Amino acid sequence: MEKYPIPMVPGPVSVPQEILNVAACNYGSADLEKEYVDLYVSTQKALQKIMRTKNQVVIQSGEGMLALWSALKSTLVPGDRVLALSTGLFGYGIGTMAETIGCEVRTVGFGFDESIDDFELVEKAICEFSPKMITMVQNETPSGTVNPVDKIGALKEKYGIPLLYVDAVSGIGGSDIKVDEWHVDLCLGGTQKCLSAPASMSFLSVSDKAWEIIEETGYVGYDALQPFRFAVKQRYFPYTPYWQGTAQLHKACELILKEGLAKVVARHIKVAEYCRERSLGMGLELFPQPGAILSPTVTALCVPAKMSWKKLDESLRMRGVVVGGNYGCLAGKVFRIGHMGSQADMALVKEAMDILESVVHG
Amino acid sequence: MEKYPIPMVPGPVSVPQEILNVAACNYGSADLEKEYVDLYVSTQKALQKIMRTKNQVVIQSGEGMLALWSALKSTLVPGDRVLALSTGLFGYGIGTMAETIGCEVRTVGFGFDESIDDFELVEKAICEFSPKMITMVQNETPSGTVNPVDKIGALKEKYGIPLLYVDAVSGIGGSDIKVDEWHVDLCLGGTQKCLSAPASMSFLSVSDKAWEIIEETGYVGYDALQPFRFAVKQRYFPYTPYWQGTAQLHKACELILKEGLAKVVARHIKVAEYCRERSLGMGLELFPQPGAILSPTVTALCVPAKMSWKKLDESLRMRGVVVGGNYGCLAGKVFRIGHMGSQADMALVKEAMDILESVVHG
Repeated sequence: MEKYPIPMVPGPVSVPQEILNVAACNYGSADLEKEYVDLYVSTQKALQKIMRTKNQVVIQSGEGMLALWSALKSTLVPGDRVLALSTGLFGYGIGTMAETIGCEVRTVGFGFDESIDDFELVEKAICEFSPKMITMVQNETPSGTVNPVDKIGALKEKYGIPLLYVDAVSGIGGSDIKVDEWHVDLCLGGTQKCLSAPASMSFLSVSDKAWEIIEETGYVGYDALQPFRFAVKQRYFPYTPYWQGTAQLHKACELILKEGLAKVVARHIKVAEYCRERSLGMGLELFPQPGAILSPTVTALCVPAKMSWKKLDESLRMRGVVVGGNYGCLAGKVFRIGHMGSQADMALVKEAMDILESVVHG
Repeated sequence: MEKYPIPMVPGPVSVPQEILNVAACNYGSADLEKEYVDLYVSTQKALQKIMRTKNQVVIQSGEGMLALWSALKSTLVPGDRVLALSTGLFGYGIGTMAETIGCEVRTVGFGFDESIDDFELVEKAICEFSPKMITMVQNETPSGTVNPVDKIGALKEKYGIPLLYVDAVSGIGGSDIKVDEWHVDLCLGGTQKCLSAPASMSFLSVSDKAWEIIEETGYVGYDALQPFRFAVKQRYFPYTPYWQGTAQLHKACELILKEGLAKVVARHIKVAEYCRERSLGMGLELFPQPGAILSPTVTALCVPAKMSWKKLDESLRMRGVVVGGNYGCLAGKVFRIGHMGSQADMALVKEAMDILESVVHG
């Protein structure tokens, strides 16, 4: 299939040709060449800058869900207590994932259209439940909302909770993610969102405390983190690394750092504001409630009452625009404009919003 | 890094430009487009032809080890009995992997330089131990040997053992793999060996019996097979599929089927025979014992006594040839020529063997 003429899906986003080209080459065997290890280390360093952390970054071959599973399975054992702070599909979903591992999960739940804002409730749950891990989502893609990781990180520190797990898959590279300042132990990312690479790789930052727990846990599997701890030093990865995929991730980081992280973040904020203004201007309703923190990478809008999602999607596609629908309880009701990574482009978003306006008013 | 001038590593092999090019394009969102589902189905069908099976094929985003773990974790629970038939690094390794799941593992072990050949011993172990699963490796890459899956499959049938698990990662697309005729329940493959694609995807065939056990087991995770069972029908994959990776795998299958599977297999046999003849002709010693079944995809040779592996490797690299070293107890002692996939090319192998000869005699 051809690339969408006006791609506005909230991931996988349109991949710039410079990143695509990196995959069109042969390299040596990643198992054998020091050059691969150097590329891996250089990519780790770039991701550390983008995530603002001194923590080691692990890069894995597989989609973003691999990072989500890796971090849970490598640190949790049956019976462990997990406090799942949930404001959307992924927030609640991570709690369910921890349950399948046999953990005792307590959920502090909010509406899908809210951000975490009742910190007394969270603090009370932390005190009462004394979890081993707090889980949360930094950017809830299906809801178009952001959660205040800083505030939860401060509570984690205050009460000495061992692990803070943050799904930042659709935030990293488009939001200001401050892993160390926020006290995040496991910060999870993927390539096909703000990094604008294909959906082939995932990565996460791992704190010293998390490494300690990973060693205790001794989890083994494709998604085990432990073998990555000394992989560079030992020049031995647990499976043949995907050189082209790592090279694409490296190139993606390079483009962000070349533009400047602050500029990239500002570009996302500006484009998101524009998208929301235009949406409100054409009479559309934001899905998030007033008071929710709005995402700089994706805007979630209510499907207008006079039009089905199917009809809206078809009409937009006829004009070349492809946006995201939704899942679960939001299916058919909420649609999303993904202005992340390569798609956080004012001219592209303007074009898309002009067409959306004509469709909504047409 | 540039491609090796004369690539002879037993995977990841040199990727033909036609396969590389497929990754240099943007596609739509694999979560949304029927065209992706069609590509997935078409790739499944092509792999069924290459593996000679009517069983459903699951295609996953991740390196070949993902298939190995998937098939174990999705079917086994702690306490299950696993009979690990082992003739090399992977054969013994799979037994260890099953142990980490908590299975009771009995190993019928042979030398690293042998093929499974004592079928009475295997039969006795099957009768005594009555395993839920028999595991084996079709093509032991580090050893350059093949195991007779047909004979083990017949024993499996005779005794009604539920599952036969076969790692055929370095055989599929270069050997005649007969999944149905051999009664294989879980036949595991990867992209970077005989299929000549990058190390990004893995796949496996799953029998009806295996699906039944997968449903009973209820395993959940990135490497869980269950969500793939009805993924096509439900148009819902457990994570965003990697469109470029699937497209490369599809192209790789297409190239094999276009050449003709029988011709591809014959090409591998012919090149392997040539490689062995030349090796013996220059005074090198095959690693496998007489009586072992020799691999058509990789030749394992003893490092000549007068030369260290390091020196051999350096000398070959100076002339543009890169071969594989070895791991574990074979490190430094056995090296390997990977004539699989794109590298099962008579002209290429001839060039490499000429250089090897000059280095060995130089």
